[in-house]
Amino acid sequence: MTKGKITVLGLGAMGSAITDRLRESGYATTVWNRTAAKTEPHVEAGSTAADTVAGAVTAGDIIFVVLLDHASVHERLEPVAAELEGKVVVNLTTTTPNEARTTAAWAAEHGIAYLDGAIMAVPDMIGRPGSRLLYSGDENAYAIAESVLKTLGTAEFEGADPGVAALKDMALLSAMELMFAGLIQAAAMMRTVGVSAADTAEETTAWLGAMLPSLHGLAAIVDGGGYRTGGQSVDFTRAAAASLITASREQGISADLLEPQKKLLDELAAIGHGADDWPRIIELLTIE
Amino acid sequence: MTKGKITVLGLGAMGSAITDRLRESGYATTVWNRTAAKTEPHVEAGSTAADTVAGAVTAGDIIFVVLLDHASVHERLEPVAAELEGKVVVNLTTTTPNEARTTAAWAAEHGIAYLDGAIMAVPDMIGRPGSRLLYSGDENAYAIAESVLKTLGTAEFEGADPGVAALKDMALLSAMELMFAGLIQAAAMMRTVGVSAADTAEETTAWLGAMLPSLHGLAAIVDGGGYRTGGQSVDFTRAAAASLITASREQGISADLLEPQKKLLDELAAIGHGADDWPRIIELLTIE
Repeated sequence: MTKGKITVLGLGAMGSAITDRLRESGYATTVWNRTAAKTEPHVEAGSTAADTVAGAVTAGDIIFVVLLDHASVHERLEPVAAELEGKVVVNLTTTTPNEARTTAAWAAEHGIAYLDGAIMAVPDMIGRPGSRLLYSGDENAYAIAESVLKTLGTAEFEGADPGVAALKDMALLSAMELMFAGLIQAAAMMRTVGVSAADTAEETTAWLGAMLPSLHGLAAIVDGGGYRTGGQSVDFTRAAAASLITASREQGISADLLEPQKKLLDELAAIGHGADDWPRIIELLTIE
Repeated sequence: MTKGKITVLGLGAMGSAITDRLRESGYATTVWNRTAAKTEPHVEAGSTAADTVAGAVTAGDIIFVVLLDHASVHERLEPVAAELEGKVVVNLTTTTPNEARTTAAWAAEHGIAYLDGAIMAVPDMIGRPGSRLLYSGDENAYAIAESVLKTLGTAEFEGADPGVAALKDMALLSAMELMFAGLIQAAAMMRTVGVSAADTAEETTAWLGAMLPSLHGLAAIVDGGGYRTGGQSVDFTRAAAASLITASREQGISADLLEPQKKLLDELAAIGHGADDWPRIIELLTIE
């Protein structure tokens, strides 16, 4: 029931999960890892281990790259550019959008069909419901690899700009990081009156869950671009943000996490936008 | 069907909604507002308007205060301290925890039973499903007012520290502000490749909704206090945070909203906590 030949470079938690899933789906898998010992369980389960990157990429038609970072990708791939010519490289290593674009340009120079991917899942989720992967770059490479990609989770092609999948990943992770920061801030404030972080998380989860739908309204204000919908104003939001900062400091808790948004609101007020809708702060974020 | 005499000071959107609800629930309501015109629709609907604050508070057994801010509360209540003696004051004006404590101390000096409240709802929600109000301060005042309070929404007594209701309000609003900042950051990044804020909100809502349950795990790490559960480390999270900042700047978008969390992670790493669980950043937020 072998369906095709796949190579996986890198057997960290994510690379291993991907290899497992591909092998279970009936693909012949060749694996390579910097530390060879990590190939052993995969060999026992039916994969082939390659001693060298060149050997590994020669064995496969589609090459999954799941390495530490952008530098490791180039360290491993550049010496085997000739062996990769005409093949499909799917780079699932976490990189910035510009790093993805750099790798795509390098691949194009060497006749390699390049897809850059971002994994919106943890290793345990790979191939299971909820696993979602974004891809961008060479649309033909996507068409060739699509059936393989779909064994790992939902596959979405985001467009020809190879940086877009990484950018969407980074944008969503930024939103998550700020939501997590919100819990930390709330828990720090509530600890001062003896409330456990668990109790604060219970409250915060319910509250943020109830507030999530309002993101659509904020987005509509941003897309509208007029910033005069009669929604919550810069001045009102500044005053509210100032209260949060004061309340936090009164309890002996730093307001550093809350300061940047207040600063953006202050800047808007200073240039005469106090009566505008507060989401106008997005316009201050463009720096070039 | 009159059940009791209630006074409402302040007929902004929230004070008006509260008055409407109390009147509809069968309470005799007396209203006062700085601008008298705002009392007219309430008088037409069956409330009594008072010309002075003293007159208003004399007419009621329970006095709801829904004014602009802490200063307005003291400006209006201090001259009528004698008239308030022995009555229950429920202050729903948005204040910081320390302001609530100040008002409670003033009330205690004058023999006034004081409850400080925080409204986790918008005016349209008052008295409807989802409306939630927190109270703290004088437990006897809460017991006296409870049936009245329950007409406005879920009523929860948070304890004798009069600042706790306000603090919980501020903590949850802080978490919300940071979640909103996350959408703004994500939308700013995605706009650079032509994705609308609406599309980013769609993605962000789904993603944050899926990530919300992980707040419980972060809270467990904080409550545990050992910060060595083998979860995501300070060093790993620092690298991820650095990637987000780089990705944002590469797209010409300021990373100011993302900087404070990275700074806290850097501080932890610098004092030897790089291998600890990242939620340890909460320990750096205590400033006294």
